[in-house]
Amino acid sequence: MVGQRFVSLLEAHPWFELKWVAASERSAGKTYAEACNWRLRDPLPKGARELSVHECKPGGAPQLLFSSLDSKVAGEVEKEFAQAGHVVVSNSSNYRMEPDVPLLIPDVNPDHLALARQQRQQRGWKGMIITNPNCTTVGLVMSLAPLERAFGLEKVLMTSMQAVSGAGYPGVPTLDILANVIPFIGGEEEKVECETRKLLGKMVDGHVKMGDFAVSAHCNRVMVEDGHTETISVALKTKATLADLVEAWRAYRSVPQERNLPSAPKHPIIVREERDRPQPKFDLNAEHGMATVVGRVRECPVLEFKYVALSHNTIRGAAGAALLNAELMKSEGYLD
Amino acid sequence: MVGQRFVSLLEAHPWFELKWVAASERSAGKTYAEACNWRLRDPLPKGARELSVHECKPGGAPQLLFSSLDSKVAGEVEKEFAQAGHVVVSNSSNYRMEPDVPLLIPDVNPDHLALARQQRQQRGWKGMIITNPNCTTVGLVMSLAPLERAFGLEKVLMTSMQAVSGAGYPGVPTLDILANVIPFIGGEEEKVECETRKLLGKMVDGHVKMGDFAVSAHCNRVMVEDGHTETISVALKTKATLADLVEAWRAYRSVPQERNLPSAPKHPIIVREERDRPQPKFDLNAEHGMATVVGRVRECPVLEFKYVALSHNTIRGAAGAALLNAELMKSEGYLD
Amino acid sequence: MVGQRFVSLLEAHPWFELKWVAASERSAGKTYAEACNWRLRDPLPKGARELSVHECKPGGAPQLLFSSLDSKVAGEVEKEFAQAGHVVVSNSSNYRMEPDVPLLIPDVNPDHLALARQQRQQRGWKGMIITNPNCTTVGLVMSLAPLERAFGLEKVLMTSMQAVSGAGYPGVPTLDILANVIPFIGGEEEKVECETRKLLGKMVDGHVKMGDFAVSAHCNRVMVEDGHTETISVALKTKATLADLVEAWRAYRSVPQERNLPSAPKHPIIVREERDRPQPKFDLNAEHGMATVVGRVRECPVLEFKYVALSHNTIRGAAGAALLNAELMKSEGYLD
Amino acid sequence: MVGQRFVSLLEAHPWFELKWVAASERSAGKTYAEACNWRLRDPLPKGARELSVHECKPGGAPQLLFSSLDSKVAGEVEKEFAQAGHVVVSNSSNYRMEPDVPLLIPDVNPDHLALARQQRQQRGWKGMIITNPNCTTVGLVMSLAPLERAFGLEKVLMTSMQAVSGAGYPGVPTLDILANVIPFIGGEEEKVECETRKLLGKMVDGHVKMGDFAVSAHCNRVMVEDGHTETISVALKTKATLADLVEAWRAYRSVPQERNLPSAPKHPIIVREERDRPQPKFDLNAEHGMATVVGRVRECPVLEFKYVALSHNTIRGAAGAALLNAELMKSEGYLD
Repeated sequence: MVGQRFVSLLEAHPWFELKWVAASERSAGKTYAEACNWRLRDPLPKGARELSVHECKPGGAPQLLFSSLDSKVAGEVEKEFAQAGHVVVSNSSNYRMEPDVPLLIPDVNPDHLALARQQRQQRGWKGMIITNPNCTTVGLVMSLAPLERAFGLEKVLMTSMQAVSGAGYPGVPTLDILANVIPFIGGEEEKVECETRKLLGKMVDGHVKMGDFAVSAHCNRVMVEDGHTETISVALKTKATLADLVEAWRAYRSVPQERNLPSAPKHPIIVREERDRPQPKFDLNAEHGMATVVGRVRECPVLEFKYVALSHNTIRGAAGAALLNAELMKSEGYLD
Repeated sequence: MVGQRFVSLLEAHPWFELKWVAASERSAGKTYAEACNWRLRDPLPKGARELSVHECKPGGAPQLLFSSLDSKVAGEVEKEFAQAGHVVVSNSSNYRMEPDVPLLIPDVNPDHLALARQQRQQRGWKGMIITNPNCTTVGLVMSLAPLERAFGLEKVLMTSMQAVSGAGYPGVPTLDILANVIPFIGGEEEKVECETRKLLGKMVDGHVKMGDFAVSAHCNRVMVEDGHTETISVALKTKATLADLVEAWRAYRSVPQERNLPSAPKHPIIVREERDRPQPKFDLNAEHGMATVVGRVRECPVLEFKYVALSHNTIRGAAGAALLNAELMKSEGYLD
Repeated sequence: MVGQRFVSLLEAHPWFELKWVAASERSAGKTYAEACNWRLRDPLPKGARELSVHECKPGGAPQLLFSSLDSKVAGEVEKEFAQAGHVVVSNSSNYRMEPDVPLLIPDVNPDHLALARQQRQQRGWKGMIITNPNCTTVGLVMSLAPLERAFGLEKVLMTSMQAVSGAGYPGVPTLDILANVIPFIGGEEEKVECETRKLLGKMVDGHVKMGDFAVSAHCNRVMVEDGHTETISVALKTKATLADLVEAWRAYRSVPQERNLPSAPKHPIIVREERDRPQPKFDLNAEHGMATVVGRVRECPVLEFKYVALSHNTIRGAAGAALLNAELMKSEGYLD
Repeated sequence: MVGQRFVSLLEAHPWFELKWVAASERSAGKTYAEACNWRLRDPLPKGARELSVHECKPGGAPQLLFSSLDSKVAGEVEKEFAQAGHVVVSNSSNYRMEPDVPLLIPDVNPDHLALARQQRQQRGWKGMIITNPNCTTVGLVMSLAPLERAFGLEKVLMTSMQAVSGAGYPGVPTLDILANVIPFIGGEEEKVECETRKLLGKMVDGHVKMGDFAVSAHCNRVMVEDGHTETISVALKTKATLADLVEAWRAYRSVPQERNLPSAPKHPIIVREERDRPQPKFDLNAEHGMATVVGRVRECPVLEFKYVALSHNTIRGAAGAALLNAELMKSEGYLD
């Protein structure tokens, strides 16, 4: 699903052009139209249909590569491409927590990109690997970043209700999720808990100092196609009112907005005031799926505040995230 | 839906027999088969089919009444019946938080029933009103009671993923919930937060002293037919291990088990050890829908422990809850 | 749902501007934003938000009115407006089968519009009522029209799998349709069977001569949001091959295409060649929801040919249908 | 799913005991509890948990074997067991249409079992292969058999709305069917069309003479867990009224009822009179999932009559079907 989102989002991209696709040996040699089992509602872009599918090996590939490989193979393959000089902008989890690999949300921690030069030096690779977080982490961190910036975070407790597209294709069997909730997603809670603290960590002496707040995640799968909904409770370091939180979210801008990057949402955080929003049905595609939509901000009797956040898991949480990472890199001269 | 569950559960009840049903004027005079739009999978019991539907007025009604009236009318109607000498065992929310009305889960706070005598004296009613909690509160409190008893509670943070049957019939329009999550249920969070503290409060000098712990609830509707799934984080007053929690749940017994009440689950709390349970699909009907099923017990980086609980919202959370209340009352001589 | 589609489709309409909305007394006096409970994924158009909702009475209303009134009130109200001189373009079923009321699909039977002048004369109304068919009829008749024109129809047997939006809002309760099929929709089969023969009837001496073929419909509700899928078997009057059918569908053009009416699909019928299409998920919005998508054309061992058709029930089957009717009328001078 | 149904249905079977299970090499050596990924709502029977899973090879297996192998391997494996002397009661499609293999519904064509002796002679196998039809064929043929017996069939046109469990596990990806209809199931229509005519064929000179009526099937997948709903139109050879059809269905009994076979439904066909039944939600488990439920009987303007039929696809349509076949065989001495 993420690979198809890449193809879809690249169709009309002003900076990047899709020229090369690679997949497993089984697909190599076919056209992309033959090899992909296109599952998005938007039709398969014409330009991608006739591209030949290559094997996942360097040689002939362009400088900039987007990777949504399965984590079973991503470790080796991405390394091989990075060694060969490619800039691998990856959605896979393998390298996210490595100290010298940027784990980036350009609206949140664009300065972490500096780790990339360190990575190249330390590893002696001609290219590099840049990562974006897990799809569930993104909505959480997007909504936390303005609070961290304005008030400091102390505690974060999150429960997710995640869409089936997050599990890829074929992904979740209908028999498992029809009229059901699955209160477990392998490895997800661990990823959310550590990635959040890396993303909201500060660069100190060329290293990321993990955020000094506690994060706890409960992750669930529900019968939704796209869009992860999260209920979030937070305790802050400094005093704030409900109005302060709303103001912090609405005022939040960062590097992608300042540089007007092509995939950047104008409003990274949208605050809805209806009592029952955000909902996947209505809010999924806000800012072309790149905004995080927040609502139901209220006091929490246990921590301090609570609210609901929603973001599009295969756009803001995956393919769009990687694309924005590449745009940030280009704006800083990494792709010259 | 709750009314139909009452009819279904009373079909083979060893102590109580369904003799009298009442509804709005519109239905009065019809047979129950004509008046009800039967929506349960189990067929409408034969014995109920031909019962005449009465108006909701005292006169001709038996002593013991189960009420699942809409809260818009329950206040007046239940009072009228209680004044007229009936024991009204109610699933409606109107009287739950009144200081002299028992809010009961027989497995949790059977001693609160004593409020009923006080209620009669103070109000001068010949009968009385007894209530059970909101369907979302039940699963939470069932899972908390053993922890409160063994370790003391300090903080409780809960997110629910609630079934559509909790909204009654016709209830949730398909257009609202199909492939969607609705992160709001009117009044639900407030009910959970205050009912939990009353249920786990202690009787002191004839009054309920509210539990001295904080409770925060996030309530959501998901596309599930029956069964509320809850993710729960807790902080305890005394030191405990994960194994201690499991032991406390497994060992928990209370008055309904001791007296072997007909609707009492043998094991009020069932702990599942699979990594992805409980789930509505598989665990809904444990102990005929009267058990609360708990799983995924693990440490919480923000509070202390976290887990998942599931209970059947129209059985343990509504009709079965009221039935067990009536059984407790009978076992204490209230219905003689 | 249909009323909201009207508002949505009129937002950017090149010929018509939404100026006036009316609803039940309960809503009169509110703004449209207050009165409507907006349920479409696309946001409520800005221009409509502040419109005052009027009572459903002539006086102040513009000449051209779109009606999606409940059939319980449409009979009286539409008549009142037509008497007062308005052109009522109605999606309600009340007048569809009246001999002097056009039941129109502009791509199929634009010449039936001539009944309108007759209607005015006979009834002495200053205005008139024009209708579009039931949402299930539309997809069927769109797919049949090219076959009737090219080969003549003898027998038509259709089973529908209809979306819940066809039942309006709140419409189908989740408890009724979750993981279920409801093999009955009140009045639907009768409508399909008689409307189809009127739509494909010929104008003879100023009257519609009903099509001389047999039609049988089985109508079902399934858990789909938008889009009615229909399996169709047909027997034809003259010899044809599978390729002839495909050619007839692909070549089909009619008055809306010739006059380039704003809502007209360029290709009224789209034929898909994949073995598993059309599907609501992928084909719903073909030609902005105004095309009928056909696939799986093959021989039928009982009649002669069989295929699957899909069309958008609230666009092509309701609001878009009425809009196209109004465009046809304008193109013929009825709105001058 | 079918294999698990076998295990579930055999748990309390009065004649047969589950002693031996076999699966692919990958599972061989594990216990059944380890090897199966149990997906039924009813818990995994205790007796089956500890059974060792064998490789699919004769040797050590009991005489009577139930097979629900994938058709890719069933051809070879079932033959090997039959040659080795086993009675293979198969749900796989491979041998169904072989002239010397009984394709059986004991309530419909118990006399076709005689083909088995012929099979043994012709093939020189010590054992034999007996088959039951496709899950979609079963509901159709169960509803047709009384009509064929009483009036003779001329034409049959059926559209199915099939449950996802019919595709096995993992089966249908949620992303394919959520809020969608898939109007195609590979090979299904062909199976229904030919199996129906074999099942309703007569034994003539030791061979099955295929039924001399036309059958056409449209097969669709919908978002239902269990239960195939079918809309059916028929033309009969002799005159009948709607009441005659109902009477024929209600009066229908056959060998399984006469011999009181353990899995036989007392009423093979149940006729519902509500205007909106049968529905999977309410009628799936009629007679423990072994009855076919029929409703909405009315005249068809194209053929002669139309109605809706429902049957449980993994019980009556698969595991229960095979079990009843084995019971028929035992009652005729084939298993002695």
